[in-house]
Amino acid sequence: MALASAPAARAGVRAGSNSSSGRAVVVSRAATMQRSIGVENYVTEVPLTLTRPDLDTPDTMRFRFEKMIREAQNSICAAIEEIDGTKFRQDAWTRKEGGGGITRVIQDGNVWEKAGVNVSVVYGSMPPEAYRAASGNPELMQRIKDAGGSSRVPFFAAGISSVMHPKNPHAPTMHFNYRYFETEEWNGIPGQWWFGGGTDITPNWIVEEDMKHFHGSYKKVCDRHDPAFYPKFKKWCDEYFMISHRGETRGLGGIFFDDLNDRDPSTILAFSTDCVNSVVDAYCPLVTRHKDDAYTEEEKHWQQVRRGRYVEFNLVYDRGTTFGLKTGGRIESILMSMPLTSRWEYDLQPAPGSKEADFIDACKVPRNWV
Amino acid sequence: MALASAPAARAGVRAGSNSSSGRAVVVSRAATMQRSIGVENYVTEVPLTLTRPDLDTPDTMRFRFEKMIREAQNSICAAIEEIDGTKFRQDAWTRKEGGGGITRVIQDGNVWEKAGVNVSVVYGSMPPEAYRAASGNPELMQRIKDAGGSSRVPFFAAGISSVMHPKNPHAPTMHFNYRYFETEEWNGIPGQWWFGGGTDITPNWIVEEDMKHFHGSYKKVCDRHDPAFYPKFKKWCDEYFMISHRGETRGLGGIFFDDLNDRDPSTILAFSTDCVNSVVDAYCPLVTRHKDDAYTEEEKHWQQVRRGRYVEFNLVYDRGTTFGLKTGGRIESILMSMPLTSRWEYDLQPAPGSKEADFIDACKVPRNWV
Repeated sequence: MALASAPAARAGVRAGSNSSSGRAVVVSRAATMQRSIGVENYVTEVPLTLTRPDLDTPDTMRFRFEKMIREAQNSICAAIEEIDGTKFRQDAWTRKEGGGGITRVIQDGNVWEKAGVNVSVVYGSMPPEAYRAASGNPELMQRIKDAGGSSRVPFFAAGISSVMHPKNPHAPTMHFNYRYFETEEWNGIPGQWWFGGGTDITPNWIVEEDMKHFHGSYKKVCDRHDPAFYPKFKKWCDEYFMISHRGETRGLGGIFFDDLNDRDPSTILAFSTDCVNSVVDAYCPLVTRHKDDAYTEEEKHWQQVRRGRYVEFNLVYDRGTTFGLKTGGRIESILMSMPLTSRWEYDLQPAPGSKEADFIDACKVPRNWV
Repeated sequence: MALASAPAARAGVRAGSNSSSGRAVVVSRAATMQRSIGVENYVTEVPLTLTRPDLDTPDTMRFRFEKMIREAQNSICAAIEEIDGTKFRQDAWTRKEGGGGITRVIQDGNVWEKAGVNVSVVYGSMPPEAYRAASGNPELMQRIKDAGGSSRVPFFAAGISSVMHPKNPHAPTMHFNYRYFETEEWNGIPGQWWFGGGTDITPNWIVEEDMKHFHGSYKKVCDRHDPAFYPKFKKWCDEYFMISHRGETRGLGGIFFDDLNDRDPSTILAFSTDCVNSVVDAYCPLVTRHKDDAYTEEEKHWQQVRRGRYVEFNLVYDRGTTFGLKTGGRIESILMSMPLTSRWEYDLQPAPGSKEADFIDACKVPRNWV
């Protein structure tokens, strides 16, 4: 039951006197909200770089990271187009202050009901609370708190993010996101930088060999860089993608990391590059294997219910989504992650011993796959 | 773009050593989260009252409000069953500490894809932040802040809430919620009480005569009690049901009020009773009129997209839903409000001059209907 419904909008909404047309004039929060980033200007030709040519010279990590994610966007989209047999639609924009984005979406394709791959480069300033939330690093969070003040913190962020929802319920959904973050010196705290990211898989049932392939692929990637990475980042992924109100994860995990800055930046860039360039080999064979599997109406319903769980996680918990909705980012790019279709069935309880019950069990107590 | 994905779950999740079965033991936040209310014990016979017989004698507002909403649940469900031709499923529970709930749901009926009417009576204690959020009253919020301290605040809450999603895209969705709240004396602040509630309508296109009937019905109800109510509560409704990240309302409004305690409690109870007892006459004629309307596949898609917006509002902004998800309420009752099916289409833009564009315009700049 939804007991309390209180006036969340009151503070942010101004209502003027009725206009001559007899309409109440209501200025929405979205219109009055302080955007941390500027307005989009759509472009048909994307500039070679979305960074600032004068400041972000080719030797800077900002430039190098953007180059890496734009190449990855091209190669991943090419692989997806080949399997789907359709082309991505592209929307690209720049912002007056610098930065911009490239959103590519296939909707209602042959294999995927929705597949999106976004790249964005953002300059802006954020309130200290957002800095603390973005950093995730407890020590830094404390320093930001101690520094006090309400002046905004200049930041740079570049990232690639993607969600792919196949039509066939036996083919898994996959999500990945790799990002690089910088802040400038603020209130006596030196500028910071860190990398974050991850790739995770959300099937609707357990197929052991698929999970061995997907997790095995990322274990290999991790092991090439640091044998401590996979166990640490696999566990972090299980923890992050928890739908807390249900006590179950969104899917069957993968890897997730954040605040990574404990070694040379170029070394971490190499790891991030390896991760993003492994998406196709880790994920696509699972789709190719299952895209034409036969399925029942009940199985399609179960897929749709799991899509509903995906929506719950993304709208309630995902920090990227909630951050984006609050800071005035491009809504259609942020919510590209939503499935084309989803379903909520009241009190659906999988039968004990069913493959659905086994799946839920693995969401409640994450398993090791490799 | 969903740039930052940070470890929201870290603080709340404990990971133990691997168990002998080779599984990582992860205790979810849901399991460790401090529930402000107790665990449900399902019952087949609902007690005559869910209040505490020793404390909540028939003269108390707690007892009287519960009686009112349970009678309303019965009469509204009877009217819906007659139109739908199917029966509500009922789930009822009590809690050891007192209180309980009755959830009634029709899923995949003849007329409604999902119709739910919930009653709940809750005793518990909440942290001061929740008290401030629940009260919504700026003066009281300041007093709570000034009082300081972290001890929990004992509260009582009773409410009825409902969402009904018809199958036919030309028949509107309707939501209502009426509630009564009490807190006990805490940190020198005397105990508080207030009423809140509202009824609002969410069609997929504008049908002027339907809006005149619905809003006209609630204007009449309001005018019977205070001529200042309708204009004030209509505006409040438009402001509350704002999907801020899109700058558009969830639907075409109705009435919404909160923190109502500026007159004799019995007088406000009479108003609340009149409101809830007007749901059937204000809403059902619209469904009866449109439940068998012909519609195209495009119109069904548009309905599904609007259902997606409903989900966005409820999961991101609705205070009742977010409060419920965070305090460990019964998830299936809280999320009964979700539609059975919904849809997210990338960058869907209604054609200029279309009836969909006119509807969106009314969501961006709320209109007066009576």
